[in-house]
Amino acid sequence: MQRTPLSDMEIAEEMADAARAAILPHFRNSNLETSNKLADGFDPVTVADRAAEKAMREVLILHRPDDGILGEEFGRVAGNSGRTWVLDPIDGTRGFISGTPTWGVLIALSTQDGPVMGVIDQPYIGERFVGSADMAHVIGPLGTSALKTRATKTLDQAILFTTFPEVGTPEDMAGFQAVSKQVQLTRYGMDCYAYALLAAGQVDLVIESGLNAYDIQAPIAVIQAAGGIVTDWQGKPAHNGGRALAAANPDIHAAALEIVRRF
Amino acid sequence: MQRTPLSDMEIAEEMADAARAAILPHFRNSNLETSNKLADGFDPVTVADRAAEKAMREVLILHRPDDGILGEEFGRVAGNSGRTWVLDPIDGTRGFISGTPTWGVLIALSTQDGPVMGVIDQPYIGERFVGSADMAHVIGPLGTSALKTRATKTLDQAILFTTFPEVGTPEDMAGFQAVSKQVQLTRYGMDCYAYALLAAGQVDLVIESGLNAYDIQAPIAVIQAAGGIVTDWQGKPAHNGGRALAAANPDIHAAALEIVRRF
Repeated sequence: MQRTPLSDMEIAEEMADAARAAILPHFRNSNLETSNKLADGFDPVTVADRAAEKAMREVLILHRPDDGILGEEFGRVAGNSGRTWVLDPIDGTRGFISGTPTWGVLIALSTQDGPVMGVIDQPYIGERFVGSADMAHVIGPLGTSALKTRATKTLDQAILFTTFPEVGTPEDMAGFQAVSKQVQLTRYGMDCYAYALLAAGQVDLVIESGLNAYDIQAPIAVIQAAGGIVTDWQGKPAHNGGRALAAANPDIHAAALEIVRRF
Repeated sequence: MQRTPLSDMEIAEEMADAARAAILPHFRNSNLETSNKLADGFDPVTVADRAAEKAMREVLILHRPDDGILGEEFGRVAGNSGRTWVLDPIDGTRGFISGTPTWGVLIALSTQDGPVMGVIDQPYIGERFVGSADMAHVIGPLGTSALKTRATKTLDQAILFTTFPEVGTPEDMAGFQAVSKQVQLTRYGMDCYAYALLAAGQVDLVIESGLNAYDIQAPIAVIQAAGGIVTDWQGKPAHNGGRALAAANPDIHAAALEIVRRF
């Protein structure tokens, strides 16, 4: 008897489960091995990062051998289906090595037009934000809730997040600060969790720069499924990385875009 | 038959349980009521904040009627035991209204010499960091672990946390930045959770200013129980609030104190 084939979302969840199992033994482990990925900067890569991406790739090899893969740790594998799984096993490695609970596992499924499905998973909390054309919810310590972005209309009512106060280049930083000056509250340090909070209707804007495709594709899918918008700083697609402007709704997106597009 | 009286730690845990129950229905609730506590600034107080402090005070009235209470929301009640319970029902209200999982419930028991027992509780994650003369552990999603601070010896190997990049007054900020320039990594946005991470051996320094007694007493007790040190920026007791320098060990404390004491 043949089993029903798994849906794409079931596969994504199986990948997220595999990543959790690979990562958690290393989280807050004082023997954590780190190595310096970039000669010119502090960008630790952990054993957990590699183990998680390997575990996720194994799920894909088994269930979706024709799809392509783009992952942070092990690069690109071409497929022949026109679809690509885009993986960041630990988004927020600095947060991870500091023990914070706001790093995440990012999984997106993309076509050439961009991501159509995404998962932002926080293994330590046991919290999973998922989004696709027909689904937008979070499963966490308090159960399952729908994801729906906020209706905030103006910047002076908005909560803005970014990961570092030193946002990318001086030009990037100036663009970020120009928006930051207009909002009610700016907060830092949440890595991909900031995008999850935007999808969950808790914050209004996330502005970042210097992103890779694997940093932003899962957030794009989850935020779009929840009613939000993600573009680059010119209002164009952001799924290839670079600068991202994620917003809860068209009004707040337009208000922030008007500012950042000058930089 | 008389029941065995509860220990101070059992009472603190009962208070933390009561605070969790009072707070969680309001967390990530889109109908969250906020009011402006300070006319000149953005300092939201939530319904949850008041409900949690009230619930904790009820535990004390029942079990420790002779002890004093100092709480953020409802002020000071004098006792006649020489002991005071120091309560911050939601430390990190900005983080709370943004949906982050890094605010916390702070409970300390103090004598005139400072805090002797502390609890830092994160209700959403279900994570509780406790410390006293004979106890230092965290109970969380992965079970129970001992708390023990790190042995980092030099600033260039240290991870530093603070809540805002705009740390207090210009003088405060200059002091913070002078240390920040020397460390390996600076991170923001964790509220009281940064102190919990220091106790858990994940980070080396937390530097803040403009604190109230109820912001810092529970962190002091938990960090000291885990082997760390908390003083003000002159190396004196920090339990009355103001500027705090929390460090994983005497070496890293001395290295940071040498810098901040000039400001």
